[in-house]
Amino acid sequence: MSTFAAEDRLASTDTDRDGLRERYRAVRRYTEKLAAPLSPEDQTVQSMPDVSPTKWHRAHVTWFFETFVLAGAEPDFKAHEETYWFLFNSYYEGVGPRYSRPMRGVISRPGAHDVGVYRDVVDDRMVSLIDRLDDGSLTKLADTIELGFHHEQQHQELLLMDIKHVLSLNPLRPVYAGEPALTEPMAAPGDAGWVDFEGGLVEIGHDGDGFHFDNELPAHQQFLLPYRLADRLVTNGEWMQFMADGGYQRHEFWLSDGWAKIQEEGWSAPYYWTEEDGLWLEHTLHGTRPVDPALPVCHVSHYEADAYASWAGKRLPSEAEWEHAARQQEGTQVSGNVADNQTWHPQPAGAPTGKLRQLFGDCWEWTGTSYLPYPGFHPAEGAVGEYNGKFMSSQMVLRGGCALTPPGHARVSYRNFFPPGARWPMTGVRLADGGAPAA
Amino acid sequence: MSTFAAEDRLASTDTDRDGLRERYRAVRRYTEKLAAPLSPEDQTVQSMPDVSPTKWHRAHVTWFFETFVLAGAEPDFKAHEETYWFLFNSYYEGVGPRYSRPMRGVISRPGAHDVGVYRDVVDDRMVSLIDRLDDGSLTKLADTIELGFHHEQQHQELLLMDIKHVLSLNPLRPVYAGEPALTEPMAAPGDAGWVDFEGGLVEIGHDGDGFHFDNELPAHQQFLLPYRLADRLVTNGEWMQFMADGGYQRHEFWLSDGWAKIQEEGWSAPYYWTEEDGLWLEHTLHGTRPVDPALPVCHVSHYEADAYASWAGKRLPSEAEWEHAARQQEGTQVSGNVADNQTWHPQPAGAPTGKLRQLFGDCWEWTGTSYLPYPGFHPAEGAVGEYNGKFMSSQMVLRGGCALTPPGHARVSYRNFFPPGARWPMTGVRLADGGAPAA
Amino acid sequence: MSTFAAEDRLASTDTDRDGLRERYRAVRRYTEKLAAPLSPEDQTVQSMPDVSPTKWHRAHVTWFFETFVLAGAEPDFKAHEETYWFLFNSYYEGVGPRYSRPMRGVISRPGAHDVGVYRDVVDDRMVSLIDRLDDGSLTKLADTIELGFHHEQQHQELLLMDIKHVLSLNPLRPVYAGEPALTEPMAAPGDAGWVDFEGGLVEIGHDGDGFHFDNELPAHQQFLLPYRLADRLVTNGEWMQFMADGGYQRHEFWLSDGWAKIQEEGWSAPYYWTEEDGLWLEHTLHGTRPVDPALPVCHVSHYEADAYASWAGKRLPSEAEWEHAARQQEGTQVSGNVADNQTWHPQPAGAPTGKLRQLFGDCWEWTGTSYLPYPGFHPAEGAVGEYNGKFMSSQMVLRGGCALTPPGHARVSYRNFFPPGARWPMTGVRLADGGAPAA
Amino acid sequence: MSTFAAEDRLASTDTDRDGLRERYRAVRRYTEKLAAPLSPEDQTVQSMPDVSPTKWHRAHVTWFFETFVLAGAEPDFKAHEETYWFLFNSYYEGVGPRYSRPMRGVISRPGAHDVGVYRDVVDDRMVSLIDRLDDGSLTKLADTIELGFHHEQQHQELLLMDIKHVLSLNPLRPVYAGEPALTEPMAAPGDAGWVDFEGGLVEIGHDGDGFHFDNELPAHQQFLLPYRLADRLVTNGEWMQFMADGGYQRHEFWLSDGWAKIQEEGWSAPYYWTEEDGLWLEHTLHGTRPVDPALPVCHVSHYEADAYASWAGKRLPSEAEWEHAARQQEGTQVSGNVADNQTWHPQPAGAPTGKLRQLFGDCWEWTGTSYLPYPGFHPAEGAVGEYNGKFMSSQMVLRGGCALTPPGHARVSYRNFFPPGARWPMTGVRLADGGAPAA
Repeated sequence: MSTFAAEDRLASTDTDRDGLRERYRAVRRYTEKLAAPLSPEDQTVQSMPDVSPTKWHRAHVTWFFETFVLAGAEPDFKAHEETYWFLFNSYYEGVGPRYSRPMRGVISRPGAHDVGVYRDVVDDRMVSLIDRLDDGSLTKLADTIELGFHHEQQHQELLLMDIKHVLSLNPLRPVYAGEPALTEPMAAPGDAGWVDFEGGLVEIGHDGDGFHFDNELPAHQQFLLPYRLADRLVTNGEWMQFMADGGYQRHEFWLSDGWAKIQEEGWSAPYYWTEEDGLWLEHTLHGTRPVDPALPVCHVSHYEADAYASWAGKRLPSEAEWEHAARQQEGTQVSGNVADNQTWHPQPAGAPTGKLRQLFGDCWEWTGTSYLPYPGFHPAEGAVGEYNGKFMSSQMVLRGGCALTPPGHARVSYRNFFPPGARWPMTGVRLADGGAPAA
Repeated sequence: MSTFAAEDRLASTDTDRDGLRERYRAVRRYTEKLAAPLSPEDQTVQSMPDVSPTKWHRAHVTWFFETFVLAGAEPDFKAHEETYWFLFNSYYEGVGPRYSRPMRGVISRPGAHDVGVYRDVVDDRMVSLIDRLDDGSLTKLADTIELGFHHEQQHQELLLMDIKHVLSLNPLRPVYAGEPALTEPMAAPGDAGWVDFEGGLVEIGHDGDGFHFDNELPAHQQFLLPYRLADRLVTNGEWMQFMADGGYQRHEFWLSDGWAKIQEEGWSAPYYWTEEDGLWLEHTLHGTRPVDPALPVCHVSHYEADAYASWAGKRLPSEAEWEHAARQQEGTQVSGNVADNQTWHPQPAGAPTGKLRQLFGDCWEWTGTSYLPYPGFHPAEGAVGEYNGKFMSSQMVLRGGCALTPPGHARVSYRNFFPPGARWPMTGVRLADGGAPAA
Repeated sequence: MSTFAAEDRLASTDTDRDGLRERYRAVRRYTEKLAAPLSPEDQTVQSMPDVSPTKWHRAHVTWFFETFVLAGAEPDFKAHEETYWFLFNSYYEGVGPRYSRPMRGVISRPGAHDVGVYRDVVDDRMVSLIDRLDDGSLTKLADTIELGFHHEQQHQELLLMDIKHVLSLNPLRPVYAGEPALTEPMAAPGDAGWVDFEGGLVEIGHDGDGFHFDNELPAHQQFLLPYRLADRLVTNGEWMQFMADGGYQRHEFWLSDGWAKIQEEGWSAPYYWTEEDGLWLEHTLHGTRPVDPALPVCHVSHYEADAYASWAGKRLPSEAEWEHAARQQEGTQVSGNVADNQTWHPQPAGAPTGKLRQLFGDCWEWTGTSYLPYPGFHPAEGAVGEYNGKFMSSQMVLRGGCALTPPGHARVSYRNFFPPGARWPMTGVRLADGGAPAA
Repeated sequence: MSTFAAEDRLASTDTDRDGLRERYRAVRRYTEKLAAPLSPEDQTVQSMPDVSPTKWHRAHVTWFFETFVLAGAEPDFKAHEETYWFLFNSYYEGVGPRYSRPMRGVISRPGAHDVGVYRDVVDDRMVSLIDRLDDGSLTKLADTIELGFHHEQQHQELLLMDIKHVLSLNPLRPVYAGEPALTEPMAAPGDAGWVDFEGGLVEIGHDGDGFHFDNELPAHQQFLLPYRLADRLVTNGEWMQFMADGGYQRHEFWLSDGWAKIQEEGWSAPYYWTEEDGLWLEHTLHGTRPVDPALPVCHVSHYEADAYASWAGKRLPSEAEWEHAARQQEGTQVSGNVADNQTWHPQPAGAPTGKLRQLFGDCWEWTGTSYLPYPGFHPAEGAVGEYNGKFMSSQMVLRGGCALTPPGHARVSYRNFFPPGARWPMTGVRLADGGAPAA
């Protein structure tokens, strides 16, 4: 279990002036810490349209503060560089013309160093702003600044996901950080157990005071039949049994779109696995190493997760089941193997506890629920309102966080989402069962 | 409102020997009736990968009976033509290698006449089988034969949707049937009204004895907040207001995927609309004619329906809301403007009634619900089990039926589904409101 | 060797009124004769963008006479159908907007029968025009009418090439004409011999009075070193040796574009060959049958022809060498296995004669020469000027004709051309050697 | 006119030990000099599949010496890094599996600095080898080393072409070198004159002792009719007249492939031109500046060059005409505006001289000749034999060199080649006329 490093942690409750300033510094520092092992060349590459270059992430989160905070609050606001406004806008159509996403990797300038300068300038202006605003103005801005923190945290995770993809395509098998991991296999967890939940008319969604994204609202009721969840994530060893049983060759386990996808792209194993002389290897941020059967499987798509569940005679949890179960067990406590552990990879489940293990951290868990607005959802006003709502189409909800999630970012009501074919996020599988009406 | 023609109607309750035989004959005859106005050339064309040639539809529904009924029940079964087995298999991976879908339009032989022969042969064998089986065997087969009826009805609607698409690409503006419709505009319905529903813990899904697809099961409870539905479909006239207000140019109304799609494909109006000298024309099965503001808008995608709802400050109904409302109002009665009316097009709503108008027929109504399995859903065993479940990914549910739906096919629990970008089905929009938890 | 059927032959010298009328009727009748075995469905299909439907060919050649002859010569000209003007324009940008080429296969109407009516109407008007024009006017129109004959002949060959492609995609393995050919292998020709030519400053290009396309002009001099040509076409048997020696797997034989192409598309044999249980089968217009080693290889691309020549330590002829050799040997005589033989397929070379065999007919012979304008080439004035010149880019010259070429169409100066990757024309290989300056 | 900087010049005649060593050092130093203004980020980007990253070019030319010289000549050869062998192989299929070309831009490591180390190591080993080989062995290797020089020079030009493309996509409009050029327009040259040549049986191809690529051999005779060439390149001002006269909108000037291309890609001006507030701007290596009518037009494709010539009622020269004319006028002397001028851009033609101006340097000149083997051409043995021959398909010959060509690289017999649609090379247009046989 993680004990978050004090310096990295974004304590979520300090919204007074000092708290804001310190938390601003902490979140900004953490981004630079993650980027530090990466050369200017590493930071430049966009290895596929979904991936953004490291230096783009570093600049984009800075642009967020410049655009949504400084531009409105500084009396004589002047952009650090006019052109940065559309180079580092991501998708906020309301702000202005954006630079075509798949072309981010052709923009060599500003370079990694210039982006550092941009960050420093905006940091000075942000800290100065926080220090000099009167209380009322600061209070009005605090929500947007807070959103900037969580936005930057999301890009911290993306930065790691993306550089993992970049390095994966290099035949030199480069390492992001640290020594190549030891290859002694870890102790395998025993068989998964099941934890039962009663269901009924339950409440999900954000309901407290802390920070949340708009998509976690409104809290509302759903009716659940009794169900049970596996007490740990599916392991690599179990996934190998699925493969050995023709998992990727037998159409009867697959959604039609998934079956088409695996034919088209020739999938026969999780994303970062490659076979060499009969041995399965896995690309990780610590380098390439043998697949360890004890570890949770990761970098599988929703299609694969769903097929695995069909093969196992089970199903994926709904997001309401997941959240209800997590609240039952943990309340709103969150702990797990996340980024400050610096494992950069899911870890074994440990000994059974009679409770759900690995709920937070390790791997984002695919649910069987489409990412749709909660009943009564309203996007926020203005450009910030584009944050979440417009992505509510053809994506699936994931819950819980992963080993790349920044400390303090995950929540019991947090809704992550990706298209069902995405494999570069650190995604895994928890099985569910039950949930049918009595016959 | 339609009074179904007795000869076309598939009475849904007769499952005894005589009933099966007569209903078999009726459903088969109706397919041929729909294909009759089409030349061999018309029946050959596949105008895009989603469309199938008319003669393919005629053969494929025949193959269904041959494969799933005759092959198991005839003692010395021999396929009419071995090669037809994979030419006319659609997507049943369990049956054998299928012929690549986008290539259906290059198969000139068997021609329209040969397909007629194939139909006659299978019909003779089917009728003979129904006549000679002992009661027990017939009872065991009755469900599959019944499924064959409803399968053929689905393809009857597809046949019309598909040929509408084929003819739309012909600059000669050909007509499927009848005289080109008169162009006098119809009387516009007044403003839409709203019908309120209380919600609560409601039951949806098929629960009676009649025929149903596997995806309508199991009946189960959902919790709904109070909501209201518009009492008629959105009209062409209202849609023109949306267009005039920049509906297709203002990103703030659109889902991100939808916005990308309309940029990519240059959408600026419903699918079959074209502008000529400042006048909007609409391609219909009766030919091209001016868009009539009184008629329901049709052939809009889910993206457009959702954008329209955003523009109107409303939303789309959930499928549970739709079904609950329909059951409240109609029970399980179904009537409306469907295929036996031979309008081949949605009709005006008529005068307000204080109730929901146009619930069945006219246009399939997009819901805001993703097409997912109901809690406890299990696909049927065997190849027939591929019928529905495997399509439960990245599609949206539609409810109610359209002017091309065969008489007797729609149901209150019927779940139709298409990807959110589909425009060639006859799809329209009913607005919803409410449904948020009390603040 | 062919003796052309009198009724099919287009005697190329009769340009007086009676001659024009009879030749008009002959060329028009021959098109219908070729289309006669094809059903309306066959005539509708476009199996790839390069292929046109049979009924489109039948209509397009009719449109040519209507547009380039009737429209200018009939006093009160009125198009048979206005819409046909752009439906059946092929590529004449000067005439008006054309209908997108890859969409020809979605136009089900006008059907095969309607196209027949169109042909009859234009034929009546053409014959009537020929009969009633004064001598001077007729003389002025004679060249365009003559061009229409040769244009229609080109489409006669295309019609056969195209329907061969259409039928090839049908797993029923349909037959265009006649009984499936006998499968007894023919007697193999002995080893190829060589015929030597001296070269020097030679003249090529059209220089007589007969019909010719603009691309055959002007006749001009080229300097050739001594060279020799194989006295027959490469056979299937020889091609199998190339394949057995890794011909499709060894990059060293291939042009870079060709190597990329065969990787991309997985080529490992000539276009219409398929392997079944260790036996090579070939799709022909007489149906599918075992590859006969005695027959000339056909349906190979320029890339394959070039790779074969490299493997054999030889090269392809230049077009100047081919024409010079043909003139040396045959003068302007043309005879060979062309369409009136109704073999629809290349035939064995027969016994050696000390001369070049198979010069005309059997297979078009790839040359090593790019299709470029002859020195001093000028396209004709007006829309007819688009006939040839604008295609002079990225195509290779072929010489000699094939078994699908209409009788009376080929010439010693005839320049056929296709892109180097084209495989659906009936193309084969004759080797060349020599031609280098003395060391 | 250029006077080549002594330090940059690759004196082409010194093949003794000292000459080889000094020339090796000079060519290697020049590459680094060209790369010096580029940051590690600049050196990493691949902006389209045809472009390679700067650091890839720097490594690939190094790999050439390592593979084709060191590997065969060092007694205990060991690759600097095994993985570099396929990372930096370009297209030599004979050497081993190459890394997919369009993925060069995702390889962040080795970085720019590591490539510098690689270069230093190979340089030390090369110089040491040159110093210690006995005379006989050195003589045997000299040709390959010499090929390495010219190979590296080709990549020096590519490096500049490629980085020009990379920078062009950056909305910041970055500058490769120097201050942004002054924007005062230069003095326009007067009307182009014509220089006449008699033609006859002429000899082209390399025939002396100096270095040449295999594609320049064998020297051979071609027969030319009398012709004339414009005495300077077409200017931007003349190109603007072409544009104003509908040059990009009138199909009658265009090859069919070219017309399709400009429709598809929306071309309406040379590649690096953009219109802003009615002013045409041009991206150059000195930054973006107004198009100067006095300068030669550059970055036009063969399609555009051919269309321009059609519009002007002229044609492009054949490569034999170009070479014959250049030999007549200059013998084998070469001078012009090439890379050591550091203009990085074509310059105005200067005053008329009665002779051909701008023959070498400024812009590569499109010819009307396809890139095909000369009669009797044989590729070299071994992997080096892949150098040129396999590209002889669907490309057009260019002659003369450009402002990015390294000093000492161009020759009167030099054959450059690109596909007809290529626009990122620095290509321009010289018109030709005459060359038709007497009527």
